[in-house]
Amino acid sequence: MALIVQKYGGTSVGSAERIHKVADRVIHARNQGHDVVVVVSAMSGETNRLVALAKAVADPPKAREFDVLLATGEQVTIGLLAIALEAKGCPARSYTGAQVHILTDSAFNKARILEIDDQRMRSDLQAGRVVVVAGFQGVDAEGSITTLGRGGSDTTAVALAAALKADECQIFTDVDGVYTTDPRIVPQARRLDKVTFEEMLELASLGAKVLQIRSVEFAGKYNVPLRVLSSFDDTYTNTGTLITAEDESTMEQALISGIAFNRDEAKLTLLGVPDQPGIARDILGPVADANIEVDMIIQNIGADGTTDFTFTVHRNDYAKTLEILQTVKAQLKAREISGDNKIVKVSLVGVGMRSHAGIASTMFRALAAESINIKMISTSEIKISVVVDEKYLELAVRALHTAFDLDQVATAA
Amino acid sequence: MALIVQKYGGTSVGSAERIHKVADRVIHARNQGHDVVVVVSAMSGETNRLVALAKAVADPPKAREFDVLLATGEQVTIGLLAIALEAKGCPARSYTGAQVHILTDSAFNKARILEIDDQRMRSDLQAGRVVVVAGFQGVDAEGSITTLGRGGSDTTAVALAAALKADECQIFTDVDGVYTTDPRIVPQARRLDKVTFEEMLELASLGAKVLQIRSVEFAGKYNVPLRVLSSFDDTYTNTGTLITAEDESTMEQALISGIAFNRDEAKLTLLGVPDQPGIARDILGPVADANIEVDMIIQNIGADGTTDFTFTVHRNDYAKTLEILQTVKAQLKAREISGDNKIVKVSLVGVGMRSHAGIASTMFRALAAESINIKMISTSEIKISVVVDEKYLELAVRALHTAFDLDQVATAA
Repeated sequence: MALIVQKYGGTSVGSAERIHKVADRVIHARNQGHDVVVVVSAMSGETNRLVALAKAVADPPKAREFDVLLATGEQVTIGLLAIALEAKGCPARSYTGAQVHILTDSAFNKARILEIDDQRMRSDLQAGRVVVVAGFQGVDAEGSITTLGRGGSDTTAVALAAALKADECQIFTDVDGVYTTDPRIVPQARRLDKVTFEEMLELASLGAKVLQIRSVEFAGKYNVPLRVLSSFDDTYTNTGTLITAEDESTMEQALISGIAFNRDEAKLTLLGVPDQPGIARDILGPVADANIEVDMIIQNIGADGTTDFTFTVHRNDYAKTLEILQTVKAQLKAREISGDNKIVKVSLVGVGMRSHAGIASTMFRALAAESINIKMISTSEIKISVVVDEKYLELAVRALHTAFDLDQVATAA
Repeated sequence: MALIVQKYGGTSVGSAERIHKVADRVIHARNQGHDVVVVVSAMSGETNRLVALAKAVADPPKAREFDVLLATGEQVTIGLLAIALEAKGCPARSYTGAQVHILTDSAFNKARILEIDDQRMRSDLQAGRVVVVAGFQGVDAEGSITTLGRGGSDTTAVALAAALKADECQIFTDVDGVYTTDPRIVPQARRLDKVTFEEMLELASLGAKVLQIRSVEFAGKYNVPLRVLSSFDDTYTNTGTLITAEDESTMEQALISGIAFNRDEAKLTLLGVPDQPGIARDILGPVADANIEVDMIIQNIGADGTTDFTFTVHRNDYAKTLEILQTVKAQLKAREISGDNKIVKVSLVGVGMRSHAGIASTMFRALAAESINIKMISTSEIKISVVVDEKYLELAVRALHTAFDLDQVATAA
C-alpha cells in the first residue's frame, strides 16, 4: 500500500462530468489499496472569471484582498469533488489551504510555502478517508489567505507529497506525459517513460505546458517522485512520464532525453569593448537594473586587446536593452552595437551527456548537414544550446530529433 | 463616535457598480466618525449558481462539503468590497467566518452561532480599518466550515453587533423599512420609524421579506438595536425603521404598529371529541410526528360533555393532516371532521394593546361593517389574529388599516 498525492488541473475538473471522472479515478487508486490525497485547481475558466470581477472593481486590486477572492476558485472544486466522492460511497473530507495549515510567507499573489502540518491529513487517511485539498493557496502567520501564483496547484501537490513523504506525486493534466520534443513540430516525438528532475528543468520550454518549473525544483529538492499523466485516459493504463532523481543503478541511461527550444530570444552584442576586469558587470548591471532578464552570455577575447560581449534577452525586452546599451557603449568607449531579434534557441538535453563524449560534434554535424548556421553556443553539464536564425527552428529540431534517434519507432498496423 | 455593524444583502452587492456604492456608503459612515464593521451576502444569483453546481454533481450533496462550496459565495463579496474600499483610499481587511472565529455547532447547512472572538476585529478597528466579514458562515470546533442557513447573513450581522457591543446593526436591503402592512394591498401603508422586537416578530409575514425572524430574535435576546434601510437611497437621508426594545419612557406608544397576514393557512376541526384530559396531545401528537407544524389552536367545550377541537396548519399540509385525523377520529370516537383550506389569517400587532382596552371590539366592528365573517380568533399580549375566508383578505386588511388610523397622511402636492 502506497501513499499517493494526485493533482488535477482546471480542465480535468472543468465540469460536473469531469469531476465525476476524477472521483472514479481516485476511487480506482483506493481500490488498489492506496491512500490518496487529492489536490485540485479551480475549474477551467473560473480563475479568469474571478480576475475579471476584481478588475471590474479596481485595477490593480489590493493584493491581500485579491487572494481572498482568488482562493474561492479552488474551494469550489474541493467541495464539488468531495461531494462526488461521498455520493459514490467513498468517505472524503475537503480542506482549504488554511485548514491544513499550508503556512506561507505574506507575499500575496506569489507566496512561498514555509511549512505544512500533516496531522489532520494523516488522521483522515488513517480513518479511511480521501483528503481533498485546495491547490494554489495557503495562509500566512497572521492568518490571512495567500495564493502561490501561477502553477501554484502543482507546487501544493509536491509540497504535500514532501510533507507526507508520499510514494509518488501524480500530476494529471490534458497531455499524457513529457515528450522528446513538441509533437506539433516533430510528429514522431516520443513520450518519455522517465526523465530526471534536472533534465525536466532543462526541458522547461516543453514542460511549461505540462508542469510548472517551480514544482519540479521543489520535487527535486525534496526528492518527491513526480509523474505526469493524462486525466482523459479512461482505461487507467497510461503510465505517463515519471520524473525522479538520477538512478545510479540504471545500466543504460538514455543519451539524450529531448530537444527543447525557445522562440522568444533576441541577441545583442557590444563590439570592441576594452578587455578589462568588471566589464560584464558594467554591461549587465544597467540591464539588470531595468528588470531585464539575461539568458545566455558569451564573451570572446579579440586580438587587439578588446573583447566582444554577446548576450540574449527576451524578445519583448530587445528595444529597451538596445537603448540601455547606447549609454553603456559611450561609457565604455566600445566600438559598436549589433543586435538580432529574429533568433531562437535550440537545446539538446540529457544526463547521458555527462558520460558520453562527441555529443556536441554530432549536433553540429547534423545542423551543418542542413546548412544551418550556428550564431551562439552555450553548454552546461546536461545541455548544449545553440542560437540559430528563427527560420531554421523547425528544421533544426527535426534534424536533431532524427540525429539522436529520438523518433518513435513505427509499429506495424 | 459610534460602532456600527452594516449588513448588505445580495442585490446590494450584485455588481461591481453596486459594490462601489456600498463602499461609498461605508466611507460616508466613517467620515461621520463611526467605526464600521460590514457583513455581506453573496452577490445575487451566486448562491443559486453554487447550488446548481453541487446538484449537478450529486443531489442531495454531502452536508459538510456543500457548506465548503456555499461559503465561497460570501468570500467572493468580501474580497471585492475590500478591494473597492482600498481603491478608494479606505484601509480595509476582509475576513471569512472562520478567520474571525465565528464558532458554530456542527449542524452543517443550518449551524447555530455559539461564540465570536472579537479581538481581531477590535484591533483592526483600532488601527483605523474597516472590517469586512463574510455573512452566513462560521467554523465548528473541528475547524470545518459551516453555513447558517437561509437569512444567515442577517444573523451574522446581529451576532457580530452583539459580540462587539455595537451601537447599532444596520440591515441594508432593497426596501426602505418596515411598513404598517403590505403596500401592494394597501397603497397608503406607512413606513414605521420604530417598532419593538416583539412587534417585529409578530409582523413576520411582512418582515420576512425584509428581515429574517431568527436575526430579530437574536437581536432582541442581546438587545442589539436593529435598523432596516435601503441601500438604493443615494442621498443617505432615509433613516429606515429602527427595531429596538420597548422604550418605557416613551409617552405615546402607538396603539397598533401594523397588520400582518398569512395566506397559506388551512383549518381543521375534530367535532364531538369526548372532553377528557390529554385530548390535545392525542390529536396533535400524530400531527407533530408527521413533521407538520400547527399554528393556531382553539378548543371549545360543548354542552353535551364533548368538545370541538380546531387548529390551523400550512395549506401544503392540509391533505396529509386530514388523513391523519381520520385515524385519530376512529381512536377517539369523535363525531366528525371538518376542514377548510381557503382561509387566511389577519393579525393586528402592537405593544400598545397591553395598556389599551377595546382594541378587539374595534377590530370586530370594522370587520362586521364589511360583512366579513370571523371563523377563528386567537389573541396574545400584543396581537389579535382572526381567521377569515381567503376572498376577504384584502378587504379585511384595508378596513383594519383605516380603522386603526394607519393610513399615510396625504401631503399637499
